[in-house]
Amino acid sequence: MNIILKVSGKFFDEENVNNLLILKESVKELINHGFRVGIVTGGGNVARRYIKMAREVGVGEAYLDLLGIWASRLNAYLVMFTLQDMAYMHVPQSLEEFIEAWSHGKVVVTGGFQPGQSTAAVAALVAEASSSKILINATNVDGVYERDPRIYADAKLLPRLTTSDLRKILEISQSVQAGTYELLDPLAIKIVERSKIKVIVMNYRRLNKIINIINGEEISSVIEPV
Amino acid sequence: MNIILKVSGKFFDEENVNNLLILKESVKELINHGFRVGIVTGGGNVARRYIKMAREVGVGEAYLDLLGIWASRLNAYLVMFTLQDMAYMHVPQSLEEFIEAWSHGKVVVTGGFQPGQSTAAVAALVAEASSSKILINATNVDGVYERDPRIYADAKLLPRLTTSDLRKILEISQSVQAGTYELLDPLAIKIVERSKIKVIVMNYRRLNKIINIINGEEISSVIEPV
Amino acid sequence: MNIILKVSGKFFDEENVNNLLILKESVKELINHGFRVGIVTGGGNVARRYIKMAREVGVGEAYLDLLGIWASRLNAYLVMFTLQDMAYMHVPQSLEEFIEAWSHGKVVVTGGFQPGQSTAAVAALVAEASSSKILINATNVDGVYERDPRIYADAKLLPRLTTSDLRKILEISQSVQAGTYELLDPLAIKIVERSKIKVIVMNYRRLNKIINIINGEEISSVIEPV
Amino acid sequence: MNIILKVSGKFFDEENVNNLLILKESVKELINHGFRVGIVTGGGNVARRYIKMAREVGVGEAYLDLLGIWASRLNAYLVMFTLQDMAYMHVPQSLEEFIEAWSHGKVVVTGGFQPGQSTAAVAALVAEASSSKILINATNVDGVYERDPRIYADAKLLPRLTTSDLRKILEISQSVQAGTYELLDPLAIKIVERSKIKVIVMNYRRLNKIINIINGEEISSVIEPV
Amino acid sequence: MNIILKVSGKFFDEENVNNLLILKESVKELINHGFRVGIVTGGGNVARRYIKMAREVGVGEAYLDLLGIWASRLNAYLVMFTLQDMAYMHVPQSLEEFIEAWSHGKVVVTGGFQPGQSTAAVAALVAEASSSKILINATNVDGVYERDPRIYADAKLLPRLTTSDLRKILEISQSVQAGTYELLDPLAIKIVERSKIKVIVMNYRRLNKIINIINGEEISSVIEPV
Amino acid sequence: MNIILKVSGKFFDEENVNNLLILKESVKELINHGFRVGIVTGGGNVARRYIKMAREVGVGEAYLDLLGIWASRLNAYLVMFTLQDMAYMHVPQSLEEFIEAWSHGKVVVTGGFQPGQSTAAVAALVAEASSSKILINATNVDGVYERDPRIYADAKLLPRLTTSDLRKILEISQSVQAGTYELLDPLAIKIVERSKIKVIVMNYRRLNKIINIINGEEISSVIEPV
Repeated sequence: MNIILKVSGKFFDEENVNNLLILKESVKELINHGFRVGIVTGGGNVARRYIKMAREVGVGEAYLDLLGIWASRLNAYLVMFTLQDMAYMHVPQSLEEFIEAWSHGKVVVTGGFQPGQSTAAVAALVAEASSSKILINATNVDGVYERDPRIYADAKLLPRLTTSDLRKILEISQSVQAGTYELLDPLAIKIVERSKIKVIVMNYRRLNKIINIINGEEISSVIEPV
Repeated sequence: MNIILKVSGKFFDEENVNNLLILKESVKELINHGFRVGIVTGGGNVARRYIKMAREVGVGEAYLDLLGIWASRLNAYLVMFTLQDMAYMHVPQSLEEFIEAWSHGKVVVTGGFQPGQSTAAVAALVAEASSSKILINATNVDGVYERDPRIYADAKLLPRLTTSDLRKILEISQSVQAGTYELLDPLAIKIVERSKIKVIVMNYRRLNKIINIINGEEISSVIEPV
Repeated sequence: MNIILKVSGKFFDEENVNNLLILKESVKELINHGFRVGIVTGGGNVARRYIKMAREVGVGEAYLDLLGIWASRLNAYLVMFTLQDMAYMHVPQSLEEFIEAWSHGKVVVTGGFQPGQSTAAVAALVAEASSSKILINATNVDGVYERDPRIYADAKLLPRLTTSDLRKILEISQSVQAGTYELLDPLAIKIVERSKIKVIVMNYRRLNKIINIINGEEISSVIEPV
Repeated sequence: MNIILKVSGKFFDEENVNNLLILKESVKELINHGFRVGIVTGGGNVARRYIKMAREVGVGEAYLDLLGIWASRLNAYLVMFTLQDMAYMHVPQSLEEFIEAWSHGKVVVTGGFQPGQSTAAVAALVAEASSSKILINATNVDGVYERDPRIYADAKLLPRLTTSDLRKILEISQSVQAGTYELLDPLAIKIVERSKIKVIVMNYRRLNKIINIINGEEISSVIEPV
Repeated sequence: MNIILKVSGKFFDEENVNNLLILKESVKELINHGFRVGIVTGGGNVARRYIKMAREVGVGEAYLDLLGIWASRLNAYLVMFTLQDMAYMHVPQSLEEFIEAWSHGKVVVTGGFQPGQSTAAVAALVAEASSSKILINATNVDGVYERDPRIYADAKLLPRLTTSDLRKILEISQSVQAGTYELLDPLAIKIVERSKIKVIVMNYRRLNKIINIINGEEISSVIEPV
Repeated sequence: MNIILKVSGKFFDEENVNNLLILKESVKELINHGFRVGIVTGGGNVARRYIKMAREVGVGEAYLDLLGIWASRLNAYLVMFTLQDMAYMHVPQSLEEFIEAWSHGKVVVTGGFQPGQSTAAVAALVAEASSSKILINATNVDGVYERDPRIYADAKLLPRLTTSDLRKILEISQSVQAGTYELLDPLAIKIVERSKIKVIVMNYRRLNKIINIINGEEISSVIEPV
């Protein structure tokens, strides 16, 4: 059973060693439960700061995206070195490289692949190519909310929704709920739908309960492809 | 001045040696007029037939896309070898490889890059990365039509439209006008908009008049980014 | 015990999904019987058509051969994706790449390597480098005939011959029996002789009986190196 | 005439867009004066912060160094994209890759190469391999001081010294003058001595006067190899 | 005008610095006369000694050939570093790598490519891929002799012959005239014939007169493809 | 338990097939005792001869070192092919390539990495990156001597010393005891100290007793990191 774990850039922004330790434990836990694991890392603040500087000196859009990709790869190296012997020791730079790396049987850690594409899309592509039926999106909120929880104190977390529901939420609230779009962009939705991949959105602070979350016993949002 | 030329898979399906000769001449013409040229090739029938076979034996979506990508690369090799000394002698397999190849100053020919992505998107990415302000889409129709010319004999060709117009046409007629979507998919539109790239849709039979087309003196559709 | 399976380009020309399914089963069968398997794919019609087009536009011999090689690699991708988890997920582009890929323990699928060289020669090189003592040549005839069966209705299949016999047949009948030369060219013969590799020529329609064929219980021609 | 410019990690820590603009101008200036330019970037704070996190989760020394190297490569990408058409579009990951990149005639930008080695050593190796007779070390102080200027207000800058003088200063003051060691470590000194490379230590705030500095008309320290 | 220069392994066995100096001068001379130059190096004694050792410990034929190839690449590095700025700074390991390297416009130096193949065949392939119409074979004899000059004191050098003549000489005297076969093996003959490449066999001691030899004004054997 | 075995260039200079056979046996022995093995090969006479030739034609220091590195890689190929199935079939050209190769679980054989660096330093880097706690240095003397045994007949072998002791010996006797410096250069000492790697210096003629040597039951010098 294969599974892909997307780790938000915010996870790295906290520069919290406990984050890395819990991540390492969660990977061990997944392996012990019979999963093969792939990891996709976001870019976070380092990405944003480098992009900002480069934009100010007039660097073009494709190259700004590439800077963000290289920042996400730096995070991938951090995770890969943290996992050490559990990980395959190369950060793939394209899906074809991922596929080759994946065939070695170890955890493969990857950052971004290509301009014009979120790491959510990378995670979906990687899930599809590895025949994973679950894609876990570990971020700094507990899941997908009906409306923006930072504005509406009573916003309800949706424990279960479909990609079609998600599309509607994205259309309505794109402006107010900036983080959501990061979860699944249109390409990511297209991929998880065509290959029937279930997406679980969870808080990375709960990575120590990852098996419970997969079993639906912990707070998270499950997005079913339709 | 840099320019990207996307050649439809249908161009190759005709297996017509004149197509290749005209393409070669048009590249020379562009170079003589001071352009640096990049070429992106579609997959065509070979792609479709290999995908069909693979689908029937149960190959997954990501790998079907990869077969199509490899078929488009075969077309890229055909073009690259036809151009011979004008071309850089490597078909890049990712945007990062394209960027390195491009810095050598010769024509770079590329097929597809990644599953989940049309060659139109590849062409847009390549145009952006090469700072091209024009992306030419050479296909087997004369340009973008108001409605499907194969159904409505009186359908009018639109000599000039915006990406925003195109989006509407795509939404309305997606079901009936299958070929159009191939011209610019959502990622391609996003890229040409953010980097202000003008797209010219033309018939590849008019490649011998490419300079006239760029100058707006020949039948084609010009899509302005907005 | 290592074994190399060369699949003729004609196998792919049929665009028959059953061919692929039988091939997949035969590989499973070989693995179940303790073999490690390498596969070499021919180029077939796609190769011929691309070469023809390129030749007409004046592309040189080395590049025509390379087009054929890329067409054979497309077939290799088709087979590799069909085998999925059984296969190593990279099509090697030289013998040195094959050797590295082979050391991972999975099925390695390769097309051509180099201009001036048949895929039969590639198969022999790959057999030698993998210390295979058997090279199976799956093609669209039942084996090697004494004289051309398409002309002489009574031509007899040779169930057993030596490379030295084969050399003579090739010299006499080269003009009339075009397909034979494809089986083993001079480089291939040199390699199988120096490394004592037995070549079995068989019909790919009998791939479902591959173990019987290896055991000499089914129609085929066995060519002993001398 | 070839020249290598080593840019300290501190340059990037300031996240100052003017730094990048001045650097770009100084490279143009050097090219206009007939120099071919190579650039080596340090890792700075990003390197230190990633190393710190990784060290706390128990990552080994070689991998900590590699994280620093990847951070320095991120800086190299920032510089490379800033230089755009002036630069060769690949950040080499070893001296052999640098040598190949260098033979294309454009500015080559590189970060670190290998654990156990400072970017000063990389700069010296790169200077030697490119037959550069000048290695400029742009950092956040004005040059080499007789003793630590942060402690001794009257410490004098040494406008001219030898590698042999530098060795003595490094031995005496290693503990008090932390930044100096970064300028030239033992491997770097060995390389600049054996290949007779002159090292100029300067403040990166004076990059706009780089030609004056090379001509000895501006504040800096010149270290002659002996 | 492109030209390929094959340098025999014996050239390197002499460990004579003058050989390298003359070779460097001859390349300059060729460039000054408007030639683009490719160089193929043989393996020589180092190849033979490593192969001998490996054979005694039971290493297989393919790997013995690879050792010889790596020895020939060591010679290629020696030549490449000797030529320095005139050369492209990468020794290609396959014809496809050669083709990419060649498109950069500098001298490309290569050793062997693949087991089962002489460096004469490599030289012919490289000549064909670079559209060279002349392949110079610099060895330790003055050209091709009618019969073995080491046995028959009166053996005459053949100033002009055809590939068809050469084939006959090779068949008759293969046993007595060991060096000849090294000049052109069957694959090499096939390639030079199909692409109409003229082969000039000359003594490497005359490399300082290479233009005269090309002009037919100095001792050598010219082999015309038929 | 991981272990690195550095084989001196002198081992190859003897061109003794028994050396290779004993080495192969010692690797088997180590694997049977539960070790994972990495091997680093020196360059020896071939390196020295090629460097000498190149120096005389004026090749620069960085490139002389690279020639030595390529000679050491030729030795690595010889060892890798000798080990055959036990070895990973690629000679890494940098530490990052080593790390990826190492993650496949087989013996990895490497030569030099980079100019300005001894193969002793490579061995230390490789030991650190593979988390090896023992680095064996197999050379043509029995261990480290108090003073040069070739001069002082009564020089005593030191069965046990620290890196700090070694530093002193190197400082005093550098001039008289040329071979010693080859054992551990300053970078190597720095690496083994920071990662607490024990170095055992032994005679390669005793490789058949390698387990005894590791257990301290045979003549050798053990250098403890302090």
